[in-house]
Amino acid sequence: MGPVARDARVVVGNKLADFGDAVADGTVLFNWSGGRELVREVFLAAPKLAWVHSRFAGLDGILFPELVESAIPLTNGSGVFSPSLAEFSLLAMLYFAKDVPRLRRQQMAGVWGPFDMLPIEGKTVGIVGYGDIGREVALRTKAMGMRVLALKRHAPAAGSDLGPVDEFYETGRLLEMVAGCDYVVVAAPLTAETKHMVGAEVFAAMKREAVLINVGRGPVVDEAALISALRDGSIKGAGLDVFEEEPLPGESPLYGMENVLLSPHCADHHADWLDDAVRFFAAQYGRFVAGEDLLNVVDKKLGY
Amino acid sequence: MGPVARDARVVVGNKLADFGDAVADGTVLFNWSGGRELVREVFLAAPKLAWVHSRFAGLDGILFPELVESAIPLTNGSGVFSPSLAEFSLLAMLYFAKDVPRLRRQQMAGVWGPFDMLPIEGKTVGIVGYGDIGREVALRTKAMGMRVLALKRHAPAAGSDLGPVDEFYETGRLLEMVAGCDYVVVAAPLTAETKHMVGAEVFAAMKREAVLINVGRGPVVDEAALISALRDGSIKGAGLDVFEEEPLPGESPLYGMENVLLSPHCADHHADWLDDAVRFFAAQYGRFVAGEDLLNVVDKKLGY
Repeated sequence: MGPVARDARVVVGNKLADFGDAVADGTVLFNWSGGRELVREVFLAAPKLAWVHSRFAGLDGILFPELVESAIPLTNGSGVFSPSLAEFSLLAMLYFAKDVPRLRRQQMAGVWGPFDMLPIEGKTVGIVGYGDIGREVALRTKAMGMRVLALKRHAPAAGSDLGPVDEFYETGRLLEMVAGCDYVVVAAPLTAETKHMVGAEVFAAMKREAVLINVGRGPVVDEAALISALRDGSIKGAGLDVFEEEPLPGESPLYGMENVLLSPHCADHHADWLDDAVRFFAAQYGRFVAGEDLLNVVDKKLGY
Repeated sequence: MGPVARDARVVVGNKLADFGDAVADGTVLFNWSGGRELVREVFLAAPKLAWVHSRFAGLDGILFPELVESAIPLTNGSGVFSPSLAEFSLLAMLYFAKDVPRLRRQQMAGVWGPFDMLPIEGKTVGIVGYGDIGREVALRTKAMGMRVLALKRHAPAAGSDLGPVDEFYETGRLLEMVAGCDYVVVAAPLTAETKHMVGAEVFAAMKREAVLINVGRGPVVDEAALISALRDGSIKGAGLDVFEEEPLPGESPLYGMENVLLSPHCADHHADWLDDAVRFFAAQYGRFVAGEDLLNVVDKKLGY
């Protein structure tokens, strides 16, 4: 944290008492891995706080009423994780298009059995929740020759560069969008509005050959409805990095399903991911000290 | 074959006698799935032949001396298969980067075990044999944020648009190129020069964390040397669609290896691939009848 350490007093702690009298003077609260309660306690005890930064992209674990109501800006780590999550999304598409489970079954049985694979070129991907992750997915899938649809709560502002999206859909047109998709990538933040937004109705509207991919937040998808859809063949498969409860309980049927590619919420973990998160904060801190505009200022009321 | 059938006599056969007197008048030889001997017999018996088209991209199964020496143009199906092979190459990269074997092992055991995955963004891919397949690989890997190197027998002509390649290497610099690669994609045609071009020396030069991918022709890779390299950890893994002998014999150790993703030469098979091959020929035939330049005229002496 070079640029921060040179001119700042840095105090690290796991409970309010750890921060001692630094709380009285602290202007910056950087939440690395604290839960909502700890962040709230420190926040309420720190009268000079001028900025809160959360290492994570998702804010559902940090937002509390006093923070939402305050004028203090909250920024997040959005962007640091997006390329990795887009790569996992691509893997999940190709995993099902080329039928990796069948390839492995045949390989391990010593069987030479050519079969028709599916191209992803020319297929349609729909991105539910088009933020930074969605944009990285769009860039990569467009380069694979896919048609890219995206669901966005607000219509894009005129002149905004939102990446290679063929058509935007507003939230009310979710069922219409997924009906035309071969792959649906969920990358929405978790808010009161998005909880279980992808449920039985969505799976019923999707093609039977379509694949659901969730790299956003587990509870955005109704997991019981997803398991039913995977069992009865309403959809072909799922690539999942996030779950309603994490760690996913050992008795979850998702573990044993051949038509699921399951990642234990580590699709955004790579050797440098923690360094990247610190580097991003350090650069933000430089902006804060210089009085420049911060990046990734979130809308605390919307929750992203 | 609409555009062909309307104004042409089409005769199909599996042996010379099947073609009857059509051989005497035939101007076009379209090889769909014939072996070298049948193609040679028909070729030698057809005095008016003005064009030979092979459905396949690789020509190692069709070239015979009289065809090589003749002035009759030979065209191939190059291009029809390239996007699918590039998709398989991407799958193989992501398969190893995200450690799909470990994901599946954990999933089937009901174990939640997060681990660090590798990004492919920022990594380097080297393409051995930069033709149509190579170009499709380059387009996709560049969009994933990778550095793209390519080995080409001949330096690219000035002003030629060869796709998003960061650096070209001539054949003599193969070892130098692979030493800097995280992924090596073999997409070279099989000729006397390329046979076993990727062997023990190449594997020794590659990084231990690197992955070899072959979507070109099996014998371009020295398979015994590859198996040794995979066993002793000289390289991390291999994604293979082609083999020295096909079908790959049941006793090949490649079947049982966890660090191999094995496809039985079907990475370019998809529901429409045969239609695509016919459509390409039909369009070529249209050019032939109109006296226009044919596409994909190969250099018979070079073999591609």
